[in-house]
Amino acid sequence: MIRTTSPSAFEPQPVSEKRESVGFDAGTAPVFGPAFREALVKLCAWRRDVRRFNTSVVPEETIDHLLDIAQLSPSVGNSQPWRWVRVMNPEARRAVQDSFRSCNARALATYSGERARVYAELKLEGLQQAPVEFAVFCDRATDQGHSLGRTTMPETLDYSVVASVMTFWLAARAFGLGVGWVSILDPDGVRQSLDVPSDWRLIAYLCVGWPLEEHVDPELERFGWQSRTGIGRHVLVR
Amino acid sequence: MIRTTSPSAFEPQPVSEKRESVGFDAGTAPVFGPAFREALVKLCAWRRDVRRFNTSVVPEETIDHLLDIAQLSPSVGNSQPWRWVRVMNPEARRAVQDSFRSCNARALATYSGERARVYAELKLEGLQQAPVEFAVFCDRATDQGHSLGRTTMPETLDYSVVASVMTFWLAARAFGLGVGWVSILDPDGVRQSLDVPSDWRLIAYLCVGWPLEEHVDPELERFGWQSRTGIGRHVLVR
Repeated sequence: MIRTTSPSAFEPQPVSEKRESVGFDAGTAPVFGPAFREALVKLCAWRRDVRRFNTSVVPEETIDHLLDIAQLSPSVGNSQPWRWVRVMNPEARRAVQDSFRSCNARALATYSGERARVYAELKLEGLQQAPVEFAVFCDRATDQGHSLGRTTMPETLDYSVVASVMTFWLAARAFGLGVGWVSILDPDGVRQSLDVPSDWRLIAYLCVGWPLEEHVDPELERFGWQSRTGIGRHVLVR
Repeated sequence: MIRTTSPSAFEPQPVSEKRESVGFDAGTAPVFGPAFREALVKLCAWRRDVRRFNTSVVPEETIDHLLDIAQLSPSVGNSQPWRWVRVMNPEARRAVQDSFRSCNARALATYSGERARVYAELKLEGLQQAPVEFAVFCDRATDQGHSLGRTTMPETLDYSVVASVMTFWLAARAFGLGVGWVSILDPDGVRQSLDVPSDWRLIAYLCVGWPLEEHVDPELERFGWQSRTGIGRHVLVR
């Protein structure tokens, strides 16, 4: 499906027009209007890294739909190197929690004084409450994509997995679900405890569920660890 | 702003309700309805890595707005390590193009036969046509975030930059703009030619502009390099 476009083809359209298009696998290119864009900004603003969940069940069809959407993410050379592993087994979950606890204790030990006090009070994961957990790996040995685009920057394979996590995260929020990314883990230990191929590298461990609260400001800001700043926005012109 | 939520609070709402909320920095938590979710799926499906641009000017206020949205991306420890460098100088742009040409020639030499023939015909960047270019770096030396979350997985700092690129990419598409991610570059060479701090690491080089065409299928699929597959979707349960 090809359509030649020009900037003028993207003039604001009534929202109702969007609903006339067919599914994403066919039809004409969609036009996104100002109402959608405004809602998209709100989605980004209210996304949050969620660590406080209620334990209500998340419908499996919602999870399936979110994974389908994550499949639409960009990947270097169309390699689709993401490997989404659903972690359900209580023993496997406990191994991840143990990894968090031990890594977090070591991280805490690197701080002192007031900063150590604040760190100790932060809630940095939702591993015991989240009804759904995913370990998301990069298959570094994949042939898909025939190495295109990753000769000089092989790390773009890992980045493609991050893109799929980000897509999942935004889509989940659109369903009212919260996602929390836990990185205070021993990635090799988690890989081994989940018994996945040794060529897979852990990129993200995600807690997914219904959030207990909604916030527009990051929890780390609210609890005095790190405020959002204006840094990095458009820092240099070359 | 706190609101206690439950799954039932996220029942479909009419689209018009979204417009009653105020900006993203205040107000009550937004509720996203089925029309928004459907449009979001289309946004992901029609995103594309764009390499064919017309040369029409992109309004600076649109670029500014997109950078503001990218600032809302998640980052490890709220570190916001992304550093968006606008590349405007013709000499700087030429250095990036030279890097692409030389890296691409070397990549082509690794293929043979039919695959080499297909590779040689692929258009893998839009560097000469795109009106807007960004080099997006990770400031590996940033103090922001006080190292939280990146003791055992320091690569999450780079991943945070990928998240900001992904946010920018989706938001740009919502404005009808195309984004192309060029990774066939010597990252250190590009960093040096742009004269940025040595602690910064190139994560992505982006071409941004109005796309000549719209597609729902990846160009690499259309040109016979690599089709999209169902791999990685939900490959294992543990």
